[in-house]
Parts: sequence; structure tokens; C-alpha cells
Amino acid sequence: MFNKEVYIRRRKTLMEKMAATAPEGKRGLALFIGNVEAPAQYKDNAYKFRQDSSWIYFFGLQEPRYAAVLDLDSGEEKVYADDVDMDDIVWMGPQPSVAEIAAGFGVSRTASYGALDADLARAAAGGRRIHFLPPSRYYNTMKLASLLGYTYEEVAKVAPGEGKHASMELVKAVISMRLVKEDIEIAEMDKAGAIGQKQHSVARDAIRTGIIEQSIVGLMDGVTLAEGWGVSFPTILTQHGETLHNHLHDKIIEPGRLMVIDAGAENNEGYASDFTRTYPTSGKFTAKQRDVYQIVADCNELAFEMTRPGVTYYSVHKAMEHLMLSRLKDLGIIIGDADEAAELGVAGLFMPHGLGHNIGLDVHDMEDLGEDLVGYDDDQKRSPLLGLGNLRMARKLVPGNFISDEPGIYFIPALIAQWKAAGTDKGHVNYGLLEKEYLDFGGIRLEDDVLVTADGARRTGPCRLPIQPDDVEEAMARANALRR
Amino acid sequence: MFNKEVYIRRRKTLMEKMAATAPEGKRGLALFIGNVEAPAQYKDNAYKFRQDSSWIYFFGLQEPRYAAVLDLDSGEEKVYADDVDMDDIVWMGPQPSVAEIAAGFGVSRTASYGALDADLARAAAGGRRIHFLPPSRYYNTMKLASLLGYTYEEVAKVAPGEGKHASMELVKAVISMRLVKEDIEIAEMDKAGAIGQKQHSVARDAIRTGIIEQSIVGLMDGVTLAEGWGVSFPTILTQHGETLHNHLHDKIIEPGRLMVIDAGAENNEGYASDFTRTYPTSGKFTAKQRDVYQIVADCNELAFEMTRPGVTYYSVHKAMEHLMLSRLKDLGIIIGDADEAAELGVAGLFMPHGLGHNIGLDVHDMEDLGEDLVGYDDDQKRSPLLGLGNLRMARKLVPGNFISDEPGIYFIPALIAQWKAAGTDKGHVNYGLLEKEYLDFGGIRLEDDVLVTADGARRTGPCRLPIQPDDVEEAMARANALRR
Repeated sequence: MFNKEVYIRRRKTLMEKMAATAPEGKRGLALFIGNVEAPAQYKDNAYKFRQDSSWIYFFGLQEPRYAAVLDLDSGEEKVYADDVDMDDIVWMGPQPSVAEIAAGFGVSRTASYGALDADLARAAAGGRRIHFLPPSRYYNTMKLASLLGYTYEEVAKVAPGEGKHASMELVKAVISMRLVKEDIEIAEMDKAGAIGQKQHSVARDAIRTGIIEQSIVGLMDGVTLAEGWGVSFPTILTQHGETLHNHLHDKIIEPGRLMVIDAGAENNEGYASDFTRTYPTSGKFTAKQRDVYQIVADCNELAFEMTRPGVTYYSVHKAMEHLMLSRLKDLGIIIGDADEAAELGVAGLFMPHGLGHNIGLDVHDMEDLGEDLVGYDDDQKRSPLLGLGNLRMARKLVPGNFISDEPGIYFIPALIAQWKAAGTDKGHVNYGLLEKEYLDFGGIRLEDDVLVTADGARRTGPCRLPIQPDDVEEAMARANALRR
Repeated sequence: MFNKEVYIRRRKTLMEKMAATAPEGKRGLALFIGNVEAPAQYKDNAYKFRQDSSWIYFFGLQEPRYAAVLDLDSGEEKVYADDVDMDDIVWMGPQPSVAEIAAGFGVSRTASYGALDADLARAAAGGRRIHFLPPSRYYNTMKLASLLGYTYEEVAKVAPGEGKHASMELVKAVISMRLVKEDIEIAEMDKAGAIGQKQHSVARDAIRTGIIEQSIVGLMDGVTLAEGWGVSFPTILTQHGETLHNHLHDKIIEPGRLMVIDAGAENNEGYASDFTRTYPTSGKFTAKQRDVYQIVADCNELAFEMTRPGVTYYSVHKAMEHLMLSRLKDLGIIIGDADEAAELGVAGLFMPHGLGHNIGLDVHDMEDLGEDLVGYDDDQKRSPLLGLGNLRMARKLVPGNFISDEPGIYFIPALIAQWKAAGTDKGHVNYGLLEKEYLDFGGIRLEDDVLVTADGARRTGPCRLPIQPDDVEEAMARANALRR
């Protein structure tokens, strides 16, 4: 947790932003519901507690079953939570009071968790608007619906103005703050990056044929738990990189495959990292693997070079697509004019996802506040094309943005067959070559986390994970030699 | 997953048991709602998926968003889940159909997940009773309430007969089956035990002063993820063992303390283990630590020796309390007749928890089906005393029961002060000695998992974790020598 002044300042800024949305006396309340424990097997056997990210941002405290109300008219702040009893002390040790805890993030008024119901009912009876963020968890959905008398569907939807919905005004104010990282946050992001790089280094050093994938995932997850909160998302480790989000790790590592490892760590303050590397399972790339790998590495580098304030990430994605297709043309996979193919959206066949996303307290930062509100400027909109249309971060970059740079090339048999049948590529794809040579290739993705600085960008973490194919092979050979 | 015959047989047995609860034509349906993904940070960023334990028991499948209905009158079985589309194939790879998956656990009729609403509405309109188990997760609570038109509170409560509540009849039938482990389950329990013992061995070998507790927890969790599903409950690792459930690991390991490690693993099939050991942080017990430690080790051994079919675990707990107090009398902590003190419940001051609980697919097996229904025979009831009253498993033991044997002695300053002020011990406690010598002692707990066999009991796992104080010190010295 940061110093309490940080949270006091952030809440003050939030209230100032919300003041612009309505005249004084008409602004209402901003309600924040922190997370409760999430049962895994049974109610009292919970997953490792993870606080709601916006709660962490404005209150810092990583304890379950807290709520808070900010009065946007009077500026009054109040926290709702329950003190412990003797039974709790026996099981959990002596605990500070809620009043002491709330003072630690700068709130002086407290009440019991149950008092929230009456306070909100009184506010609603007085005709006051109650702003809230869309809930991420089922408990929060139930709690909001029950507190406010709305349905699950109503509280999940974000809309402006009075209504039974999550507050567009509050969502936009929160996004405007969380999207630009403060210096103290950047330091935390670098710590999360350091853990993520260690997590990846341990994995790279452990790859060898004949072992089960899960054994490597366990090592990686262990690093994130030893040094931080845990993984920032379920680790992707697969010899079928063409499957973008594979969470099964039950395969034996086979020789000659490409292994995609997409994984990141959250540090103890809740900040995320997210890296992807792709390794030859035998320690050496084949010539064909190396050709495609080098394209992805060069796309990653191009995107990083273009990343600077004032540039839209939409344009960076597009430039990366042009490079990718012109290089796939060199391999004979693209036919005709590569730029024309790029404008037609042919890159989506090989890379059906976007170049990157915001990262912060969430690895897809603020995804539940609305992907378009987070990732797009008011004058931008989503492309209908596969790939570009999945771009989560399109905005004009400003210093303090933290984004992923993650191009990939995948050969997805089902998608190739679909495009071929539908003629989606308008004659730009050499299906004969794909079918002859690439259907069992798999996929490659290479991802770094990038901070937009005042005059450019820098990658996160203490040192970059090896990415050039020679460097990757050398690192794997070194680990292999040590293992003997 | 086991062979499909296992699940077919179990469901058949369940339907036979339910047939005894009502005449044919009046039995109704048994509804099972599997778990869905549990969001951690945002909706699409979920914790590692854990299926509902009763779902695992009757259907085996560890995939989210499945439901099933067993018709207790016709014997018809139907599974509800959604097939994947092209988008899913791109992100998750080619997937078998729901029909193929359901055939894998022996169900031939399938429908979409959404079809469940109409099927249940039709059954309800036809006046058929719908039996269901009490939900463990918020989603399942919401889903049941919404499917059946009941409130959260109604679906959470277990009651017999017609009503808006979870079905006591179904709960009892499920408990009667899950409480007695089949041979194939015992093999899985041993695997979970092996992982748990490795998890503990890694921890014991890593203990040294000056490092942060979290670094050991990460190693332990990593083992459980590399070899199984993960931890069977959040790891307890604390230098304040007197705090029974401490989940913070932010302390530096100090010399001269006792470190309680209570942790277990779940194997990939979902079966749990649960062990506790207590280590001297400096590698050697002090004389005072060793005295108390030996009492706990002897209590653990006594309980194991008494564990056999026909004996109630309630009586084992009581016998253990008598031994504990007579030995605490030898140390001067108990005054007067130790047996009389035991009958007054004085052991609860030093051990405010029960001797053990059932273990299976849940580490506190079936806790959400109702602790008394699971742990107590019809003619038994809970003691009002602290300690014995917290005993989760009191039943007369039968072969196939899997229970924990986990005595402990703790010196809890707040509880000691409370008892002293209230005179709860009726003159049997030497508070002067406790206050002079034991308020900073901490706590000790020693736990094994025990299978009740045909003629006695055996401990789980391939080999027992060192428990006698000399053996513990020797193991720690060996690890320390290797580290140099």
C-alpha cells in the first residue's frame, strides 16, 4: 500500500472530475464495493484473495468485505466494514479496528458493513443519484442489485445519466485516471516486470523434451507466488501456439515443436506484467521456424520503435500488419501486393488478435469498465476486420500509458479452411503452400510490456528477455549445459 | 477422470438411494449445477478453474458451465452445456462436442445450457419436486435462485420435504456415498498425499532465518501446481502458530521461533491432502519447545492408534484431551486432577479446534453440505465446549473414512486473558506460569491424513513426514548442510 496521501489525492481528483458532470447538490454519491473472498471448493475455502482493482486504486486496502461511499456534493467519505470478534482473534490473530484501517488510507468515518443498506436507501429516498462501476464478480453483481433494487442485467450495463445502470460518468473519470500511470505506479510495474521475467527465465531454462508441460507451469507459478501475488492471468504454455488461449498443460514436450509461453506476474501491490516468448522445444529453430520467428521479432521491434506520445496505437498495429504481410510475401505465403492485402485485412488470418492492450492493476487494464471506453478515443472506432478489430488499445498514446507489444503469426487449420472456402483473402493467400507446409507449424507470439515516456518509450523490467533467435538458442544451450 | 462406468454406477446408486425417499412417480428430479469460471480481477480473467466437488463425483468432467438433471422417476439423465463456435476454436483450439464429452461420463442426452430453464419450468409446472444441493459459489446461488424462482436465502438452506430449499434427502444420499471412499479414490488420495508431502519437504528444507515467509510459500505452491491442481486450501505458514488461520506471509523468519506449516495439495483429479508440521526456525528446539512439542506428537500418535472401525472419532478426541491435560499437568500448567479438567473442557483453552475432519474431494470434505450432517451420526450431537465443540468429524468410523489427525497446543494471549477473567477453567489453569513463560511461545500443530481400513488405520502418502523432534532436527540439519 502506498502512503495514505496517495489515496486521499486520488479520491479528491475523482470527485473534482465528477463535479464537472452535474451542478452542486445534484451530483449524488459514488459507491465502491470491494471484493469478498471467492470460494474455490466450498464457501470457507477460498482462492487467494484479490481485491477489486479500482478499490485498490482509490483505497489501497487489500482486505475483503469493505465498501465505501464518496459524497460527490459534500466531499464526505465513509467506509463500511465489520470489526473482528474474539472468535476471529483466535483464528486470525489480533486485528486493528476498521477505524484504524480506514485511517490508513485517509478515511475517518466508518460504519458496519450492514449499515450500507440503510445509508443507500436514505440517499435513494432523497432522490440522490448513486454512481457505481460495473461489477466484475458475481458477489458484487448480487450485492449491487440487492442494495439498489435493480436486476443483474441492469447493474452490469454502463450508461450515462440517471438510470439503473453503472455510471458512464464515473467509468470515464476512473479510466482517465488509471490509464496514465503515476511514477509510483511505474515503479510497481517494473517490479511486476522483474517477477515476470524471472518467471519466464525459469521456464526457458526448464524446457526439455520428455517432461510434462505442467511441471514447467508449476515452477513459473511458484516464482510469482514467492515474489508477488501470483500470476496476472492463467499461464499459457503450449506446443500448439495456434491455439491462442490454451490452459491445459497435460502434454509431454515433443521434439521439434514451438512452445509459446504467454505469462505474467502480479506483484504484491496488484500491478501486472505480461510477456510472451516462443521457444524451439529441441533448443534449435528449424530453418522454417526461424524464418517465421524473425518476422514476428521484427514486427515486435517495429511496433516498439513507433511507440511514442502522439501516435495512435491503431496506426502502429496497421504498420505492423503491412510489415508482416510483406515479409510473408517473401516466404511465398502472400500473393500479389502485400499492402493491398494488408488493407483488405488479410493479416487477420495469421494474427487474429490485436497488437496490444493497456496493462496496470489488471493485465487487460480496466477491461470490465468497457474495452472501447478504455482503449479507444472518442473519435476512434473498432475496425470490423479480424485481428485489427480485436485491438484492445487503439488510442493516441500519452506519457504514462503502459501497453503490451505482442505480434504473432499462427497457422490455424480451421481458420485457414474457413477463409479458403469463403474466399475472404480475395486471392492474396497461397493456400497450396499453407496446406503443404504450415498446417502443423503451430504459432509464434513475442510480447513485451512498454511504457510510453515523455519522448518515446521504454520496455519494462530490469533487462529484456532474450528475443532474437540466436540469443534464445544460446540461453537454452546454457541452461542445458548447466543441467548436465 | 475415471472410466465412465464409475460415474454411471455412482449415479445409479444415487438414484436407488433417492428412490427410497418417495414412491415412484413422486420422486422428481435431481438438479446438479457445475461451477463456472470465477473471475479474479475482471470477468474474463479467472482463477484456475475448480469444478464443484459433487459434480466431479457424479460426472467427473472438470469443464465450466455444465449442468445436469437426473430424473428420479424415469432414470433418464440429461446434460446441459453449449458447443463451441469458430471463435472458440481460434482461441481455445478444436474441441469435442458436448454430446461427445457427455458420452465420456455415460450420459447420452444433451441440450444447450439455456434449455435448462424451460425444462425445469416444465417440471415445476407439472408439480415435480426439484432436488438440489446447497450452492457453494455466488454464481450457483444466483443461478439456482433464478432457475427456480426462490431467494438466495431459500436455496442456501438445507431442509427435508417439499419446499424452496436445498434437499436434505439428496444431501444425505450424497454424504452417504462420498463419506466412504472407493479403492480408486483411495489411490487418488495417496497421490494427493504424495504431492502434499513433497510440498512440505520442500518447505522444511527451505526454512532459514532472515528470509521472507512468502518465498517458502511460493516454493510450496509451485510444487502443488507442477504436480497437481494446486493447494487444497490457502497455505498456513506462520511464526505465530497461536493464530490458527494466518494467511499473511510477509514476515522475516526470526531465530528461536516455532513455525507452523499447515498445507496440502489437490491432485489433478481434485482429491485433497492436508498435513501440518511445526519447525524450530533455528533448526533446534529449545527445551521448552521440545516439551510441548512432544505432547502434541504423542497426542497425534494416540489418536492414530485408537483409529479403527467401530470407534467414534468423538471418543478419540476426548481421549486425546485427557492425555494432553495430564501431560500439561506434568509441566505445571494444569493444576489439580487432569481428568476432571478434561471433562470441564479445559483442553479447549490450549486446543480450540477439533481433532480432525473428513478429507476427500474437499479438504473439509462436503463442508457445504452441512458440517453436522457430514460429521455426526444421527444419535450424536455437538458438544457446547470450546475445542470439542469445533470437532468436525465425530462419527463412528467405518472402513473407507479418510480423516485428519491434527492435535495442537497453542498459547493464545487474548484467550488466556478471557478465560482468566471469566474463571472458565474453574481453577485448573496455572495462569501465573502461563503469563511468565508462555505468552510468546506461539503454537504447535501436527497433522497426518488417516485412512480407516478394515481392521485399523493407515496414514496416507508414500512415507510419513518426519515428526519426532530428533527426526525433524536431523532433516533440517541435512538440508542446511546441502545448502552450504
